[in-house]
Amino acid sequence: MANPQTHLARHLAELRRQPPLVHAITNYVAMDLSANALLAAGAVPAMVHAEAEAAEFAGIADALVVNIGTLSPPWVRAMAAAAEAAVAAGRPWVLDPVAAGATAYRSTTALRLLALAPTVLRGNASEILALAGTGGAGRGPDSADPVDEAETAARTLAAAHGCVVAVTGARDFVTDGRAALRIANGHPMMTKVTALGCALSALVAAFVARAPGEALAATAAALAFVGVAGERAAATSAGPGSFRVAFLDALAAVDGPGLAAAARISPA
Amino acid sequence: MANPQTHLARHLAELRRQPPLVHAITNYVAMDLSANALLAAGAVPAMVHAEAEAAEFAGIADALVVNIGTLSPPWVRAMAAAAEAAVAAGRPWVLDPVAAGATAYRSTTALRLLALAPTVLRGNASEILALAGTGGAGRGPDSADPVDEAETAARTLAAAHGCVVAVTGARDFVTDGRAALRIANGHPMMTKVTALGCALSALVAAFVARAPGEALAATAAALAFVGVAGERAAATSAGPGSFRVAFLDALAAVDGPGLAAAARISPA
Amino acid sequence: MANPQTHLARHLAELRRQPPLVHAITNYVAMDLSANALLAAGAVPAMVHAEAEAAEFAGIADALVVNIGTLSPPWVRAMAAAAEAAVAAGRPWVLDPVAAGATAYRSTTALRLLALAPTVLRGNASEILALAGTGGAGRGPDSADPVDEAETAARTLAAAHGCVVAVTGARDFVTDGRAALRIANGHPMMTKVTALGCALSALVAAFVARAPGEALAATAAALAFVGVAGERAAATSAGPGSFRVAFLDALAAVDGPGLAAAARISPA
Repeated sequence: MANPQTHLARHLAELRRQPPLVHAITNYVAMDLSANALLAAGAVPAMVHAEAEAAEFAGIADALVVNIGTLSPPWVRAMAAAAEAAVAAGRPWVLDPVAAGATAYRSTTALRLLALAPTVLRGNASEILALAGTGGAGRGPDSADPVDEAETAARTLAAAHGCVVAVTGARDFVTDGRAALRIANGHPMMTKVTALGCALSALVAAFVARAPGEALAATAAALAFVGVAGERAAATSAGPGSFRVAFLDALAAVDGPGLAAAARISPA
Repeated sequence: MANPQTHLARHLAELRRQPPLVHAITNYVAMDLSANALLAAGAVPAMVHAEAEAAEFAGIADALVVNIGTLSPPWVRAMAAAAEAAVAAGRPWVLDPVAAGATAYRSTTALRLLALAPTVLRGNASEILALAGTGGAGRGPDSADPVDEAETAARTLAAAHGCVVAVTGARDFVTDGRAALRIANGHPMMTKVTALGCALSALVAAFVARAPGEALAATAAALAFVGVAGERAAATSAGPGSFRVAFLDALAAVDGPGLAAAARISPA
Repeated sequence: MANPQTHLARHLAELRRQPPLVHAITNYVAMDLSANALLAAGAVPAMVHAEAEAAEFAGIADALVVNIGTLSPPWVRAMAAAAEAAVAAGRPWVLDPVAAGATAYRSTTALRLLALAPTVLRGNASEILALAGTGGAGRGPDSADPVDEAETAARTLAAAHGCVVAVTGARDFVTDGRAALRIANGHPMMTKVTALGCALSALVAAFVARAPGEALAATAAALAFVGVAGERAAATSAGPGSFRVAFLDALAAVDGPGLAAAARISPA
C-alpha cells in the first residue's frame, strides 16, 4: 500500500465531487449529529429504519451505516435486512457496535450483525475487545480500555471477517488484518460531545462509498478528516456546546490540502 | 386575494400574541430542530406520537403537523388517527411527505395520509411530483427536481384534495389550486442543515393555526419568515453548524416590520 | 439540615471526581440535550430503553432517569422494569412526568411509575398538580400554573411516596415532605429551548447518584447548578439558538466556588 497520507486529498475530493447517499440506521441520540455531519462534509444522509423499507432503501443508497446505540427487536430486524441488501447490491456497509459487552442483548446483536460481512467495523477498544471475546470493561458507550490493548483483537476480527476494523480513541488504529495504520489526530474535547463516534462511523461509510477497493485507506482518511476537524474546532471553542458547532463548521471547511497537511497517519 | 406581502406582519403578530400549541408527529431527526424552531418563533411544540394518545392530543392542540421522515407501522396508525381527530375538531393540519417516491412504503403512506384532508401539503419538488404520479427522481430527503417542474403537479393536487400545496426549494411555490404565489427568500446554506424542511412544515402549522380561512396567505407568510431568517443567519455564520444556531436566533429576532421589508412574495 | 448553600461545591466536586453513569430512558426530543448536558457537567450518559436490556443496564448504572415525554407501550414496560431494577440494586432514580394531566395515557403512566418509589419526582407545577389529583391546567410540556400553587401538592406527594419532589419554574421548590427549599436561579430564556427541563431531570439523577442519603440537598444543588448555568448563558447569547450552545458551555465551566457564589437557595 502506498503512503496513505498522499491519498487523503483524493478521498475527500471524490466524496465532494459525487456526494454519496448514506443510508443510516443509527440511534436516536446520534441521528441529528450524524445527519448534520454528513451534510457538512459533503455527503447526503437518509435515516431509514422501518422493516418495511430498510432493505429496499439499502439497495438505493451508496453506503449503509448500522449503529446499535438504541436497540429494539424491530430495528434489529431492519438492520439485518438492510445489511444483507447492501451486500447483495455490492454496496459497502459500516457496523458501529455501540456498547457491545455492556449487556447480553448488545453483544448478541453486534455479533449477529458482524456475521453479515460489514465492510468496516468501527468501535472503541472496549467494544472491539468484547466482540473478539477477549474482555472489555465497558459499562456504556465510552471505552474503559486504551486503543493499544485492542490491536490484536482488531487484527483477529479483521482477518476472521474479511473486513476493516477501526479502533478509535486518543490514537486510532485501523487494520484489514494484514496492513495497519495509526491516526494521531483528534482532541480530548471530542469525548465531551455525545454521538461524535456515531457520526464518525457515518463519515467512514461516506468515504468508503467513494473509494471502492480501498476500504482501509478510505477509513483512515475518514478518521483523519474527523480528527483534523476536531482539532480545528477545539482551537476556537469555549466548551462542549460551542465545540460541537465549530466541529460541524470545520467538517465543511477542511479541504484536501488542509487535510493532507494536518493528518498524522503512520503505518502500525 | 389582497397583496399577501401586506399581511405578513399581521400573521406573525397573531402567532406571537396567542402562541399556538402545535402537535407534531415528526421524524426522530427533526424533533429537536422542529421543537426549537417553534419555540424560537413564538409557538409551543408538543411531540406526541403514541397511538394511545395521538388522537386525544390532536383534539387539544391548535394545529397538527405530520411528517413521515422516519416511519413505522404504529406511527403511521397514530398519524392517521391524529389527522382524523384534527379534522373532526376543525383544526388545521400539515402533511410533510418526506422522501415520498423513494420507497413503496413511503409513497403508499403519503397517499393514504393525503386522503385525510390536510390543510396544507408541504414538500420538495420530487415529493410533490411523486404524489401527483408524474415522476420524481428523489432517492432521499433532498429533491432532485427544480420547483418549476412541480408547479402543475402542485396545482393538480391542490384542486383534487382541496388543500394548499407548497413546493419548496430555491424559490418556493404555493397554491390552493386557483391562486398561486412564489416566495424568493432563503439561502443555499439551508440545504446543509438536516431537518430544516421539517421545521418549516411545523412553522407552517403554527402560522395556519392563527389564520383561519387564510391558509394560502399564512403558508406563504411562514415560508417567507423562514426564508428571511435563513438569509439573516447566513450573513453571520461561518458554516452549517453556526448557521443552524444563528437560524434559531433569527427566528426569534425577525419581527413583523422586518419580515414585511425583507419578504419577496409575488403572484405566480 | 445544614445550610444547603454550603454543600453546593461539595456536591459538584463529588460528581466530577467520580463521574456517575446515568442511565436515561428519556424522550426522543430530549436525548441529545440530556446526553450533552450530562457530559458537559461531568457525568456519563447512556440511553438504553429496550425491554431486552433496560433492567439489566439499570443494575449497572449509578442512577436512572425516566422521562415520559414520548411514550409507547414497549417503552413504558422498559421504564417500569428499569425502575424496579434500580430500586432493587439500591440505585437512585428520578421520574420526570412530562405533560402528566394532558392525556389519560400520560396520567396513568406517570402514576404507575410514581408507585415504583422514585428517589426524586421532578416536574412543573401543572404536572405535580395533576399527579396529586388537584387540577393542573397543562395542555402540553409547558406549565400553565405557577410553582407556588403546587407547593402543597408537592409536600403531599413527597410524604405519601417517601421521595423528594421538585417543582420547577421561575422559582423552584423542593421538598422531602418535611423540609423544603426554594431555588431562585435561572433565566426566562430557559423556557425557549426544548427539553431543558428533561436535561435538568437527568442532572438531578447525576447529583443524587453521588450524594447518598442527601437527596433533598443534592436535588437543590442540581437545580441551582442548572439555573446558574442558564444565567451565565443568557448573559452572552443573542437568542435561543446561541443560548443553548452557551448553556452547554456553562455547564462545563461552572465550578464549585462559582456555584456557591451565585446560587440563591433558601429554606421554604
